[in-house]
This record gives sequence, C-alpha cells and structure tokens, in this order.
Amino acid sequence: METMKRTVTCGDLRKADAGKTVILNGWVHRKRDHGGISFINLRDRYGVTQVVVDADAAESLKRIADELHNEYCIAVEGTVRPRPDSMVNPEMNTGEIEVVAKNLVILSRCEVLPFQIEEKSDAKEDLRLKYRYLDLRSGGMQKRIKLRNDVTFAVREWMQAHGFYEIETPTFIKSTPEGARDYLVPSRLYPGKFYALPQSPQLYKQILMVAGFDKYFQIARCYRDEDARGDRQPEFTQIDIEMSFVSREDVLTMIEGLFGYVFKKTLGITLPERFRRISYDDAMELYGSDKPDLRFAMEMQDFAPYVADSTFQAFKDALSNGEAERKAAAAKGVTIPGGGVKALVVPGKADYSRKQIDELEGAAKIYKAKGMAWMKVVAGADGKATLEGGASKFFLPAADGSGAPADLAGRIIQGLGAKVGDLILMVADSKRKIANVALGAVRSKLGKDLGLCDPKRFEFAWIIDFPMFEFNEEENHWEAAHHMFTWPQEKYHATMETDPGSVKGDLYDLVLNGFELASGSIRIHDPELQKKVFKIVGFNPEDAEKKFGFLTEAFKYGAPPHGGIAPGLDRLVMLMAGETSIKEVIAFPKNSFAVSPMDDCPSEVDQKQLDELHLIIKYPEKKE
Amino acid sequence: METMKRTVTCGDLRKADAGKTVILNGWVHRKRDHGGISFINLRDRYGVTQVVVDADAAESLKRIADELHNEYCIAVEGTVRPRPDSMVNPEMNTGEIEVVAKNLVILSRCEVLPFQIEEKSDAKEDLRLKYRYLDLRSGGMQKRIKLRNDVTFAVREWMQAHGFYEIETPTFIKSTPEGARDYLVPSRLYPGKFYALPQSPQLYKQILMVAGFDKYFQIARCYRDEDARGDRQPEFTQIDIEMSFVSREDVLTMIEGLFGYVFKKTLGITLPERFRRISYDDAMELYGSDKPDLRFAMEMQDFAPYVADSTFQAFKDALSNGEAERKAAAAKGVTIPGGGVKALVVPGKADYSRKQIDELEGAAKIYKAKGMAWMKVVAGADGKATLEGGASKFFLPAADGSGAPADLAGRIIQGLGAKVGDLILMVADSKRKIANVALGAVRSKLGKDLGLCDPKRFEFAWIIDFPMFEFNEEENHWEAAHHMFTWPQEKYHATMETDPGSVKGDLYDLVLNGFELASGSIRIHDPELQKKVFKIVGFNPEDAEKKFGFLTEAFKYGAPPHGGIAPGLDRLVMLMAGETSIKEVIAFPKNSFAVSPMDDCPSEVDQKQLDELHLIIKYPEKKE
Repeated sequence: METMKRTVTCGDLRKADAGKTVILNGWVHRKRDHGGISFINLRDRYGVTQVVVDADAAESLKRIADELHNEYCIAVEGTVRPRPDSMVNPEMNTGEIEVVAKNLVILSRCEVLPFQIEEKSDAKEDLRLKYRYLDLRSGGMQKRIKLRNDVTFAVREWMQAHGFYEIETPTFIKSTPEGARDYLVPSRLYPGKFYALPQSPQLYKQILMVAGFDKYFQIARCYRDEDARGDRQPEFTQIDIEMSFVSREDVLTMIEGLFGYVFKKTLGITLPERFRRISYDDAMELYGSDKPDLRFAMEMQDFAPYVADSTFQAFKDALSNGEAERKAAAAKGVTIPGGGVKALVVPGKADYSRKQIDELEGAAKIYKAKGMAWMKVVAGADGKATLEGGASKFFLPAADGSGAPADLAGRIIQGLGAKVGDLILMVADSKRKIANVALGAVRSKLGKDLGLCDPKRFEFAWIIDFPMFEFNEEENHWEAAHHMFTWPQEKYHATMETDPGSVKGDLYDLVLNGFELASGSIRIHDPELQKKVFKIVGFNPEDAEKKFGFLTEAFKYGAPPHGGIAPGLDRLVMLMAGETSIKEVIAFPKNSFAVSPMDDCPSEVDQKQLDELHLIIKYPEKKE
Repeated sequence: METMKRTVTCGDLRKADAGKTVILNGWVHRKRDHGGISFINLRDRYGVTQVVVDADAAESLKRIADELHNEYCIAVEGTVRPRPDSMVNPEMNTGEIEVVAKNLVILSRCEVLPFQIEEKSDAKEDLRLKYRYLDLRSGGMQKRIKLRNDVTFAVREWMQAHGFYEIETPTFIKSTPEGARDYLVPSRLYPGKFYALPQSPQLYKQILMVAGFDKYFQIARCYRDEDARGDRQPEFTQIDIEMSFVSREDVLTMIEGLFGYVFKKTLGITLPERFRRISYDDAMELYGSDKPDLRFAMEMQDFAPYVADSTFQAFKDALSNGEAERKAAAAKGVTIPGGGVKALVVPGKADYSRKQIDELEGAAKIYKAKGMAWMKVVAGADGKATLEGGASKFFLPAADGSGAPADLAGRIIQGLGAKVGDLILMVADSKRKIANVALGAVRSKLGKDLGLCDPKRFEFAWIIDFPMFEFNEEENHWEAAHHMFTWPQEKYHATMETDPGSVKGDLYDLVLNGFELASGSIRIHDPELQKKVFKIVGFNPEDAEKKFGFLTEAFKYGAPPHGGIAPGLDRLVMLMAGETSIKEVIAFPKNSFAVSPMDDCPSEVDQKQLDELHLIIKYPEKKE
C-alpha cells in the first residue's frame, strides 16, 4: 500500500477542491456506463465520491474500468472536477464534484455477491450472518455500529468525568448454582474442575466497594446459558455500575445525568432532567406491568366501585372470592391484595369489530384472565351518553325496572372519564395481579395496534418500591421477590420478620418504551440484616457461605453501604437506533439458535483437545 | 444511607473550611489515643482526614470511639477546626485541619485483619489474593488500579479523536488448532460441540476491515490455555487495533501518537515524537535480542576480524564450521548466516571476580553458548593498554615470539573502543544466532546487575524487517517465522519462491525496556499472494479453508489492504507503574497456578451441570 495510498477519503471532496490531484481508495458501490463514459460511485466509511472514466481516457484505463464490478476494492488517482450544475447531487456530501480518473488499480476483486448491499438488507437472517462482512457494509449496519461506538464512548466520558473508575473484573470465576445457567470452561490443569463465565460482575463489583473504590463502572461482557428464545444472545454487554455511601436517589440521579449526556451527545435529544418515578404498586395498577410503555397514557382504572350496584355476578364473585382469599392469608400472617376489577377506556374505538375485541381478549387470556368484558359508550335516546353492547346489560336497568340502578351507567361513564364513541374493556379476577397484568397486556397491544409507539420518542421512568418478599402459596413459604441481597427499606426493618408481605426493597428498574433497560438495588452490607433476610426466606446461612463464600466473608471486614445498577448496552443502542432486535446493533451476533453461521460455531473439536481437558462426550441416546 | 451520608470526602477539607459542619464516611485507617483524646485517621478513595474525639466529648461518643478498630467503616459528623501550627501535617492534603466529632456511627465492623493494609503489602501472594478486597485497599493497589483506568481511558480518547471505532467482537468463536491452546466452552444445546474463547480478535478485526470499518480498535479480553509459568494469566487484555489502506509507517506513526498522548496525560512524561526503528538483523547483532532493553547502550560488536590473527582455535573453528554450514545450505538454495564471534565491552569492570564472570557465562550457556571467553584491558609495562587474563593469551605474542602478532591486542582494544579497566566478554558459535543471543543474555544480565535499568525511564523502539520464513533443518522445510498471513515486503515478491530465506515481512514489534509490548503486521489481502506463501511453507490450501474458512472466504469479496497491531494492556500498565508482575495491575488476577484463592476457582460443579453439558470427566489414572 505504498504507491496508490489514498490522499483523501470518499467523503472529503468539495467544490473548493476542484483542480486538485487526489488518490481515493474504496469499494465500487455502483457503476454505470453512459455514452462511452464510466461513472463509478466509490464508497468508503466516510462517504461516496463519483469517479469518472471519460470517453477520451486511455485505452488501458478503460480496460480496467470495464473489468470493475460492484464491491471491487480499488485505488483511483485523478483530478477533482466540479460537476455541471445540472449534475450536482445535493444528497451526497461530495455531490458538487467528481474525480476524473487518470489511473485505476484493482486492489482486490469481488465474487458474485450472495445479496445486494443496500441501506437495509432484505436478505434472510442466516444469510446476512453468514456473510456478515458484506452485511456490515450496508449503510444501516455502518450507522448502527457507529452509534454503538458513540454511545459507548459517551458513557465512558461521562463516567470518567464523574469520578468512576472503569475496572476490569475476571471472566473466569466460580460457578454458583443461583440464577440462570452458567457457561462453563473446563480446566486442563485441574481434571474435573471448571471456571464459569460471569452472568454479570455482580459479586466482583460489590467486592470492589468493600475494597474502597467508591465508584466503579465497567462495560462488561456477560454470559447466560439460556434456552434459545426470542432476542437472546449467549453473550451480551452491560454498563455495570456500583457506588458506595449512596442511597437510592443518588443512583437514580446519576443515571439521569448519564443518559441525559449520552442522548444529547449521540442523538441530539434532550431528555428530562428527572425521569418520573412510579411505584411498583402504581405501575401494576395503572399499566398492569412493571415495564410500562409510557409513550401513551391510556391508564387502567379501578372498576370495583361499580360492581356492587351491577348485576354482573362474575365481577361480584371475583371481588368476594378475592376478599375471602385475602382474609385467609391474613389469618396466616400473610399480606396479599384481594380481587380486582380493572377497566380501560379506549378513546374513539366504539367502532371496534367483534373480531378486534376478540383479539384483545386473546392478549388478556395469555396472562391468565378468564375473559375480558367490553361495552361501548353511545349517545342514548335522551342525547346523554349511555352504555351499549357486550356487558352493558349488567350496568343498565332492565325493561321491567329490575337490574342495575338507572344512574349507574352515567356514574361509570363519568367516573371513568369516558366519552361517546369510546370502548370500555374490563377484566376481573379474584387475584388482583391477574386482573392488572391481563388488562395491561391489552393496553400494550392497543398501543401497538393504534400506532401510539413512536420509535423516535423516548419515555423513561423509574419503577421503585418493589416488594421484597413474595409468598409462594404452593410451597407455603416466603421467597425473595428479586434477590436476597437487596436492602429492605429502613422503615420496614422493625416489622420485617412479622410482616414480610408489606416490606418494600430498595430495588429500582429503569424502563424505556416498554422495555426494562436497567435493574439495580441498594445492597445489604450488614451481615446481621442479611441473616434476617435469609431467615425469612428459609435460606440456610451455611448454604450462603458455600455459594457466596467470598462475598459474605468480605462483608466481615468493614463493608460500606453501597448500591448499583446495570443498564443493558445492547438493548439501549437497539432502542436508540429504532430497531426491534439487538442483533441489529451487535457486529457479530449469534442467530436465534446460539449459532454463528459465519464461522459455524459451536463446532466439534479434536479428540486431543477433549483428552487434554479430561472430557468424554456423552451423546444423548436418541441421536438424530 | 439516608441519615449520615457524607457531605464531603476524606480528601476535600482545607483550612478555608474551618468552622463548617461536615459528614465524612470512610474507614478507620489508624487510631491512637493520647491524653484522653482519640485521633482517628479516616480514609476513603480520596484521601485521609484526621478526626478527633476530644477529651470533653459526650460519654456516648467516647464509648463508640473506644469500640473502633482499624478498617471499621464509619460515619462521622463534626466541625472542621484548623490544627495548631505545630500539628500541621504537610504530607496530607488535609493536613491543615481536623474534624472534631459530634456524632459517630459504625456502619460496619471489621474482624481481625489477615495482614496489615500498607502502601505496599509484604504478605504472601496467595494471602493477598485470597483477601484481595483488603489488599486492594492498600495505597499501592489503589494507585495502580487508578493508573490502569486512566491509561485505558486515555487510549480510548485518542483512538476516538482519530476516527477509530471501538467494536466489540464475540468471545464465543470457533476453535482453530493454530497457535496456543484454546479455552473451550461446551455447548448445552449441541452435544459434543464447543465454542472457543478468542486468543485474540485477530480474524474478527480483519473481517471488520473487509466490512469497510476502516479503523477499528477494541480493548479486548483474550484467553490462552498455556501452562502456568512465569507471569502468565489465563485471561489478559490487549489494545487491539486494525486499519485499512495503510502501510507499515502508518501503523507505527499512529502508535507513536497514541503512546505519546497516553504517557503525557497519565504520567506527565513526554515521549519522543518518533521511536527509533531497528531492523531485526541489527537488533540481533547489536543486542542479541528482538526485544532489547535500550535504557543502556553496551552494544555487542563483531569480533570476527581479530580471529584469524589470533591463536584461539575454538574461535577459528566456530567461523570455519559456520562457513561450511552456510555453503552447504546455499547449495540447497537456503540462505543462512555463517558463524559468529561477538564481543561486549563492559566499561570499568576489569575488577570483576572470577565468580561474577562465571555467573555471566551461566547466562550465556542457558542460551546454548558452549562457553564465554573473557579478558581484561589493563595498562601494560609501556603504559599502553593491553590485554590480560582469561583468553588474552590467544591475542598476545608468546614469550618466544610465536603466538599472535604484537599489534593485535592494540587493534582489538582500539577496534572495540575499550579502555583500561574494561572487561571484554566474547562468545563464538558456528551458528551466528547462538553467539548473538547468548551474549545478548549476558548483556541483559549486566544491565540489571549494574543498575542500568531505571524503571522511571521508558525507552521505546520498533523492531522491523523480520524474516518471513525460517528453515527448519530437522524437518528440512521452510516455516513461517511468525505467521502465514503477514505481508511479504513488496521488493521480495518476485524472488520469494526461489529465495525464501531472504524475504522480510512487514512485521513490527514495539519494545519497551526489554519487553515486547506489541506485535503487529501488514496482512496479506490478496488470495493469490496468500496461496504462494502457503505453498512455500508446505501448507495445504484446503487445510486453510478448513481452519480459517470464513476469513479466506471473506477475502474473495474485495478485501482492502490492511494491517494492525495489538499492545498488551497489562504489560503496558505494569511497566508504567514500575512493577515487575502484571498481577500488580489486575484487580482480580489468578495466581501463578491459574487459580483464584478468593473464590477458589476453578472448582467442581454439580453433576446436573455436567449432565446438561453431555460431559463425563475422565480423571487421569494416577490420581494424587
């Protein structure tokens, strides 16, 4: 690369450069011949420049031009010439000029392409992944990989400016049977022993707090051996963060500062200085989800106040059964909510067809709802709004004067803030959570169906005040709702053991557009408090020593109060790029079956490798 | 952490803060009681502040102060008070003030420490690693981890400012039998199949060039399953770099810019704008090493010109045997150097004892020298410098007028530039490389013995023009001296197949103070040239397809000329910190046996995990 090395990139040249002699290196993006002239769009990472082989060019030059096909890598020496006004291309940065070739060298040739390189490829995923080096040449992938680079560096800039050290933690750690499945690495030196790859640097970042590093972050690779499903990858990347001597608000404020900087710098978008905080209970009541999409409101409302006056036995049963269950649990010292009847007003959708409503009910049933009731708000004979269709008969007086009170429909419509033309959807269940989650699923589907989810809008929120413990009714004992190392909020410390069901933990999730983007917590740093939590969930402290030995050991040597969070980088960049799969923002992802079609891994290895690792493969009996 | 949360850090307070009420959080670094007053040195990442519990403090406060021991984590509320002039400590940033405690809270206690937390611990390595969270609290480890953070970020700043994208490559890749041993990750979904962890992102960074990313870097974790030896770690970190459309000088210049920025920003040291370039041949001739320590000169010299006139048969044999070997090889078309006799002048060390000289000879013998000759430069009876002792008799006339010519000693002394009081060391061998390497080892030992290796000096150099091929005399064929993908320098392309022994490749090593800090090359991007190289080393192209399938495949689709380099981050930071082990700059290293004493990995795993991975352990027959 000594002789025809570029003097400018394909994005550099402007009208002011006219007359200069330049060398360009790049790929033939498009080529067309017109009236004996060859027009070559030459592309590199920086842009596209039009190269012209004139009709009166030397024959040797024309012969080379004739040889060129798309994606040939070439070097061009030539003179910059302004384009005639009629030929100026305002969509190209270099659209005012072209380069008249004097010398052309083919640096390397390109075989027939398996798919065309477009802004957005429509090739099948496995083909794109097999030829990822070609897929990555597309404008879309180039932009997204650049965005990922920009986001990652902006994160680091902000973290460094705010006193965080980036500290590398090991990827060869001890396997612990908690959580998801570990990926294992067999040891050659120690037969029968294994390293595990980290599901996250969780224990290590807490150790770094014990070590006094005060503020830590790391853009860390994590590994989870989960079943191939949805948009999972065997390896993923998170922005791992931990801080000492902090309370929840410190962590939340820090993340707001970080994300504000990153969105402004990379997308030019100003986020609110403070994201709204929604308690877990409110999120469940209003959106039926702990990761609500807040790009649209459509909040769920409590329909219970209208049930007693109605003739809807199913709703009445849901509430009374729920109340009975609540009392039975209370008698055992377990606090649970009773039943619930929740409603959703869908503005202007009284014209939804039965089929559309059935589809919405389908969404509710996936989340265990027994059914979904509906009714429409219409103008009555007296011109006032009233209910019609579906379950409306239970909320209206019958012709014989029996049935619901005459004013109930009006009270409902007013209470829910509904208007003529609206559709009302309702779900009831003796378990309030089921009513919430099922109707929440309907809300989510409506958001998508009604086009309320603009990918260019970014609606962040914090979900806070998560319950610490959940009662496992089948096994009749308390469990940690998230994990056992979360700090129970101080006001519950005294009553924690007598009323675990009421305890809120200092957990927090950052949600964005219906995705959980980050999860974190203040950790327990006090070995005595930790013991109490273990006791509540029936966890043997000796098992803790065995499983988390070095962390519980470390906590004996002056552990500071600390907490942290870990936003997922892949998902963050995916949402920022307006994409729906993290594969679009990872340079070399595996496919949905944890396979890389490019290098065909995982693959079989040599017998020698297995012998060295002291391993024998035990193939399943039913081999395909 | 709501109530006694710090308002300042332990490094913040100055005289101007006198009178303020503050809260500090930190660790009890030292505590002493003097005349009823308790003095507590409170430490956090930012510094140390003296906290005082006065003699007239409340009893409750004194009781808590009495309870405190080293490394208790506490919160202190108090008033800033200037110290009396006699008590000012100029070695502490906060030495002008103290904080008079009004309120003390123990955040967490500390058990008896396994070792004292000092600036530099003298505890045994495994104990330091077992309690790494305590070891990391030492001033030395805190500084080094910060330096690593600072270096890493400075690298990223410079790379981003110069148009490099940081792109994450996968850590689950295909195992290839080339190079060192891969660490493997068994696949649960595909019985008998494995992922490999990358020894480096080499293939992927080349793929990124084919994909058109033009300038790539990544601070990348790499994995090599080598035998535990010396200062190796199973996982290590490198600054992985690749560029398109570049020649060797572009890569070298880029690294000079990067390192100049990093050293200036993090250590305040100005490096030369351009590092010296030394050909591999010169490095071997002058220093007997391709990673010479250039903090001292002491270059080796050619002693061959003085051999013919001498009576030293061993030296004569080395040269004549070497010449015979060279001719025999040339007859087979193989270019090799002949024999060599090399000398080293050690200034002022004519007083070295026989024992000291024997030790130096020991170093030479490790590198296959048959022996090391020596003589001293002394003032003769006529006042002129002459030779004495050791091998000097072979270079002096005998009493009977036989022996060497009378002027030989003077020619040697003048030719080598030696002075009275110097020691001359010589190694001869029929293989010139052995003479060079063995005497080079002596030179290295002398550098250390004579204290010429100041850890605060940084002497960089590029070693360039490495040979492409090496003749394997035992197996009678050519081998790639480094690897098969290195670009042979253009001037050798025509004669490459007829005279492989003369070909220099565009490889380059960056050396610093006797360490190889980075290795890189311009790569072959032309499939035809690659085939020629494969042919010379007798490598079956079909094997290449099998082993590097996706890279050779990718090169069919318009690969750009490209090259790169990969400085080792651990070693770089180690040298910058003036340390001699990379463990001192890694937060959580394994010990020399690839074991982590803190979490005790590698470890055995559950039978269920083995079953899921379709693995059976085959323990070696002789179990200890």
